[in-house]
Amino acid sequence: MADLFDRLKAECAADWHAYTDHAFVRGLADGSLPEAAFRHYLTQDYLFLIHFARAFALAGYKAKTLDDIKRAKEGISAIVDVELSLHLSYCEKWGIGPADLTDLPEAVENMAYTRYVLERGMAGDLLDLHIALAPCMLGYGEIGKRLAADPATRRVGNPYLEWIEMYAGEECQNACAEEREYIASLADGIGEARFNELSRCFRDATRLEIGFWQMGLDAVRT
Amino acid sequence: MADLFDRLKAECAADWHAYTDHAFVRGLADGSLPEAAFRHYLTQDYLFLIHFARAFALAGYKAKTLDDIKRAKEGISAIVDVELSLHLSYCEKWGIGPADLTDLPEAVENMAYTRYVLERGMAGDLLDLHIALAPCMLGYGEIGKRLAADPATRRVGNPYLEWIEMYAGEECQNACAEEREYIASLADGIGEARFNELSRCFRDATRLEIGFWQMGLDAVRT
Amino acid sequence: MADLFDRLKAECAADWHAYTDHAFVRGLADGSLPEAAFRHYLTQDYLFLIHFARAFALAGYKAKTLDDIKRAKEGISAIVDVELSLHLSYCEKWGIGPADLTDLPEAVENMAYTRYVLERGMAGDLLDLHIALAPCMLGYGEIGKRLAADPATRRVGNPYLEWIEMYAGEECQNACAEEREYIASLADGIGEARFNELSRCFRDATRLEIGFWQMGLDAVRT
Amino acid sequence: MADLFDRLKAECAADWHAYTDHAFVRGLADGSLPEAAFRHYLTQDYLFLIHFARAFALAGYKAKTLDDIKRAKEGISAIVDVELSLHLSYCEKWGIGPADLTDLPEAVENMAYTRYVLERGMAGDLLDLHIALAPCMLGYGEIGKRLAADPATRRVGNPYLEWIEMYAGEECQNACAEEREYIASLADGIGEARFNELSRCFRDATRLEIGFWQMGLDAVRT
Repeated sequence: MADLFDRLKAECAADWHAYTDHAFVRGLADGSLPEAAFRHYLTQDYLFLIHFARAFALAGYKAKTLDDIKRAKEGISAIVDVELSLHLSYCEKWGIGPADLTDLPEAVENMAYTRYVLERGMAGDLLDLHIALAPCMLGYGEIGKRLAADPATRRVGNPYLEWIEMYAGEECQNACAEEREYIASLADGIGEARFNELSRCFRDATRLEIGFWQMGLDAVRT
Repeated sequence: MADLFDRLKAECAADWHAYTDHAFVRGLADGSLPEAAFRHYLTQDYLFLIHFARAFALAGYKAKTLDDIKRAKEGISAIVDVELSLHLSYCEKWGIGPADLTDLPEAVENMAYTRYVLERGMAGDLLDLHIALAPCMLGYGEIGKRLAADPATRRVGNPYLEWIEMYAGEECQNACAEEREYIASLADGIGEARFNELSRCFRDATRLEIGFWQMGLDAVRT
Repeated sequence: MADLFDRLKAECAADWHAYTDHAFVRGLADGSLPEAAFRHYLTQDYLFLIHFARAFALAGYKAKTLDDIKRAKEGISAIVDVELSLHLSYCEKWGIGPADLTDLPEAVENMAYTRYVLERGMAGDLLDLHIALAPCMLGYGEIGKRLAADPATRRVGNPYLEWIEMYAGEECQNACAEEREYIASLADGIGEARFNELSRCFRDATRLEIGFWQMGLDAVRT
Repeated sequence: MADLFDRLKAECAADWHAYTDHAFVRGLADGSLPEAAFRHYLTQDYLFLIHFARAFALAGYKAKTLDDIKRAKEGISAIVDVELSLHLSYCEKWGIGPADLTDLPEAVENMAYTRYVLERGMAGDLLDLHIALAPCMLGYGEIGKRLAADPATRRVGNPYLEWIEMYAGEECQNACAEEREYIASLADGIGEARFNELSRCFRDATRLEIGFWQMGLDAVRT
């Protein structure tokens, strides 16, 4: 039987496709994405990660078991101890220094998704929170894996290959597999009404992720 | 000395102007706004009001005094007992029936502002929440008053005159005056660091209001 | 089949009995409760009501539907527009003036229950919140009804008869019946794991209500 | 000038004394505390720590800066990666096995303090949360240090000496000093009204700590 994540994707198949096959993503795959679009995305992603660390902290508050708290701590730690530093070094390769990230104004699309996740997680419970996070966590893993496996993906001279390989990499894929299982376990035994709530949340969050890619493209449209 | 609201506006003068003098607003003033843009705005505004009622409920939770609770209740009541019905009848004049409002997908710009307000109010305190609401509550009052007083505003045959007069009306203006005073009282004695936090929140909320007007225009751009 | 409330009571039958048949309650029934105990209870109940108004406000924030918001507003309104005034006049009959209620230190047992409700409601969802409130709302109704129907309850010269009749009265009983149905509707379709969570919450809240009665008795023990 | 913690203690000097010089504490100092009282305290303290980890997670959600998030993560980690294991081994020395800690019913006094902290931290901001935690974090450090320095404290054959030395130890004292400084920095520039709010919170939390000691003693009173 389809697991929860598969069911959620199936319920919003068009939105999920629009997200995972967005022009921004296709531009990463063939290397045609304007660098300014990627830079804008990268700098906003830094702010995004800070709110995602807050979202994992919220998961710790919402925890029902000691194991939930430990997972939440791992989530915060993965961001503040690892990802943010990686992000900073990666940004430097793209000519973005720490000074460019300090007091950076948050893009509306960034506020939209991060606040949606935090608010949904607060109003709902631990499962709602993880469902709101899922398009990001599981979606990036899916995108990375697909692009890395796709023979059409440009390897030589693609400035975005490193990005693709990071999300296609074992560490990220393992984290996704674990998150997917965790979500399924939190949702164990839910009825149809509850599934519909979660489905709506997943679709909304997916739409907000589409907005996040579009933000990158729009930065170079003017 | 300038009161808190004046100081907040002065700190983000360009954004405040971009919001209160947005092309959507100018289109209301001279009647040139495409009706489809207004309809899109109206239907989203219905969903917006529901989250605003939740924001007033949050103010009741965040209350420090019995008076704070009573004000929060008045805020919820104003929306669910009065404004939503007015909105429904107003929508009907524009050919939008209840069926058009049920299960309406929330626009990203709508999610962006409403969730920002709710999340800021939850993470911060009662004052943060009211500052996040201020561009909406006090901004609409300011826009209505200005357009109603402006001789250039088209009166004859302007389909949006009723909208302008609602926000320019005594009831709305009194509510604004009271809210302004309430915010000032909540902020009594704050230092510079706190003002800067509030100022950032006010600017962000103002930018999200700009997005809300733009959403109306974008609906007819394609 | 037993409705949710009956199932919840059955799961913690001993605690429920210890609460609804507490020595404080028996003292109300036969009029033997020391007046100082009742006075202490009454003054703390005033503070309790304020936090209960906040709990209904929280229910408004946690609302999933417009109807949920309206109910939350009714709950706040019932307290701040009606019950608090009734409470104040009732307190006056017992020689407790407004000055005795201002800046009254909160008893630990009072903090314990009110904060538990608010925290549970925040960490959980709307249903958790209502379950945490249920021992109070539905328990008082049950106690009032039973004492009013019990021939052993002292009528003549019982200073607590008015209290009993208030909770046995139609208005209170109708509110209880409605709340009971609302809770059942929110819980529609839940599985066993979810019921066990709710059951634990209900038992904890019941134990905290026992503490609230005991607080009244302890006030005169020294 | 007195730092914030000193001012807060001075404002509720009698309560602070009743907490830090509680009969339970004196029983730790001279070794006269009944072992059953200590065992009850220890088992409840295990549940307490789990909610304290949630409180640090809440601090991560309430964070205003990346540094705030990192500190919150350290707080969670200190509990779930270190203190809980120490607690488990310490419990074993006292004949309390993991089975005794599983599904242990929470004492009312335990619920009272933990939920107060979580609720205050949610309704207020990051500073309110840390002030609600302060009687625990800074109070235990103060008690440990005083008892360790007091020549009257029984060393030989005192079964509680290890407990005293843990809180008097360098690691704990350093953590306290750092927390004290952090709180002072969060409170930088606050006015009198805000101080009074914090003072009330600190006093309430101190009273709830008194209740926690008393819970230990009451466990053997019957």
